[in-house]
Amino acid sequence: MTSASLRVTKGHGTQNDFVLLDDRDGSVDLTDVLVRELADRRAGLGGDGVIRVIASGRLPEGEAVLADEPAARWFMDYRNGDGSIAEMCGNGVRVFAAYLERLGLWDGADELALGTRAGVRRVRRVTKPNGPAGGDDWYAVDMGRWTVPGGAAVVAAGFDAEVQVAGLDVARPALSIDVGNPHTVLALRDDELDGADLTRAPVVTPVPPAGTNVELVVPLGEQELDGVVVGRVRMRVHERGVGETRSCGTGAVAAAMAVRAWAGAGAPDVWFVDVPGGTVRVTALADGHAELAGPAVLVADASVDLDALSAGSR
Amino acid sequence: MTSASLRVTKGHGTQNDFVLLDDRDGSVDLTDVLVRELADRRAGLGGDGVIRVIASGRLPEGEAVLADEPAARWFMDYRNGDGSIAEMCGNGVRVFAAYLERLGLWDGADELALGTRAGVRRVRRVTKPNGPAGGDDWYAVDMGRWTVPGGAAVVAAGFDAEVQVAGLDVARPALSIDVGNPHTVLALRDDELDGADLTRAPVVTPVPPAGTNVELVVPLGEQELDGVVVGRVRMRVHERGVGETRSCGTGAVAAAMAVRAWAGAGAPDVWFVDVPGGTVRVTALADGHAELAGPAVLVADASVDLDALSAGSR
Repeated sequence: MTSASLRVTKGHGTQNDFVLLDDRDGSVDLTDVLVRELADRRAGLGGDGVIRVIASGRLPEGEAVLADEPAARWFMDYRNGDGSIAEMCGNGVRVFAAYLERLGLWDGADELALGTRAGVRRVRRVTKPNGPAGGDDWYAVDMGRWTVPGGAAVVAAGFDAEVQVAGLDVARPALSIDVGNPHTVLALRDDELDGADLTRAPVVTPVPPAGTNVELVVPLGEQELDGVVVGRVRMRVHERGVGETRSCGTGAVAAAMAVRAWAGAGAPDVWFVDVPGGTVRVTALADGHAELAGPAVLVADASVDLDALSAGSR
Repeated sequence: MTSASLRVTKGHGTQNDFVLLDDRDGSVDLTDVLVRELADRRAGLGGDGVIRVIASGRLPEGEAVLADEPAARWFMDYRNGDGSIAEMCGNGVRVFAAYLERLGLWDGADELALGTRAGVRRVRRVTKPNGPAGGDDWYAVDMGRWTVPGGAAVVAAGFDAEVQVAGLDVARPALSIDVGNPHTVLALRDDELDGADLTRAPVVTPVPPAGTNVELVVPLGEQELDGVVVGRVRMRVHERGVGETRSCGTGAVAAAMAVRAWAGAGAPDVWFVDVPGGTVRVTALADGHAELAGPAVLVADASVDLDALSAGSR
């Protein structure tokens, strides 16, 4: 190519996909326009978001992260596909970790501390359940604290909201879960999950002041896996302001923790969540945090022609 | 990357986008599965289709093309994103020509003859209207013969069908145009075009036996451009079996030729068609053929990790 080009990588976690940029010294002017152009699925390379690797000290806002946690050398500069800034992305952080590993920026320690706008996140490699021996590792990340905003009374009742989903006959009871962002989870039968129309936003009552992500789940019971009793859930998700997606990391946490609450005392701490884009694992940790584990795939390295990119439909 | 990789290029014509593969000696086993994986917008690189460059003589079906037209040295092996085979693609052939040029396979002649499953297609470089001097060339391709299947009586009447579009009050009269594939064109006001709901297929009466593409057009009148009187049309398109797209080459031809028929004797031969993905130019040629001209943009060169690609959501 004769014009200026930008080297990027495309990757995804359970089909939540990203354009990854190695800009460790912070020399790329990653404008909103450039983010939108890169994320454009037809005139660009395409992705749900753009993630830049940048040394924590190179981002003005990264200074606070460094002061907090000197070990978080690399900062995950996550942008939504529309150019706006996002604090975190549960699937994105795994793909970011896999990318750092490929770049040789994960120093071999068991755990990698990453700077994000939501604070430091710790990632470890874990063995994929039932995976072939020695390969196909997953990545696990502590997603922080999850809560039932309604407290113990709501946990006991099981529900604090109602959701009307297009394609289903009547409104269903639902449980609000907070995972740093708001979620509302309702249980359905298997055939109802397939029949739900998520091209329209589900209607939640009472109306959540800041909106909510809505998870439709089918509890699939418990099973023994590698000697541990685990729960399993199938889920579809409608993301606030986005629509239905193939996967949502915080949504998987909310879905698993809602079904765990409904299952009552003695329910498993480990839940597998089948989303349209694959399977992730959610673990309720003893400290009130949740861990999200799943795959991260780096599909292609690309050299993007910046002139052609901005030409758009020219 | 440690595993097997495949070098490809991503490009688009008015946002109809493709994964391009240089396989001139026919050594790549381009299976349906590989096409689907490459075209997958989240787990792959993403595109409406995959186009392979292959020497005409290397495809069994290409022999006929060679016998017919020895100059068509390169064959456009076009596949839809679902892995099925397509005969031709009006936007794809421009992107294919730009790719051949970049690969050094266009020998400098004014015209490039390409083998396609619809026969030989001739492409020339033309100057982009109102473009900056010396740059931004477009590509023009003879799309073959277009007809009004109903004949002179229907041309005189202006209509031979009715179309009901979701979001519009009543069914509207429409004209059937054949461009190798079936099209039905109806005229709307500007505000009606924006309000039309193309998430559902328009209902055409009488029902076309093989289905039809439907073009919604707003005639924008005539103007003088570079000393020639040209017509202008705004269009949205619902492609048969696909849904609304950002651009459709044969649809632009049908839209322009329908509006030209409605304009009657003395109407311009040259029409600019504004589609959501950009602008193309349609010219009615003296021999009953139509020429389609427009941009072709090569956005990125990529190296795809074939193991990661097939891992999908693993």
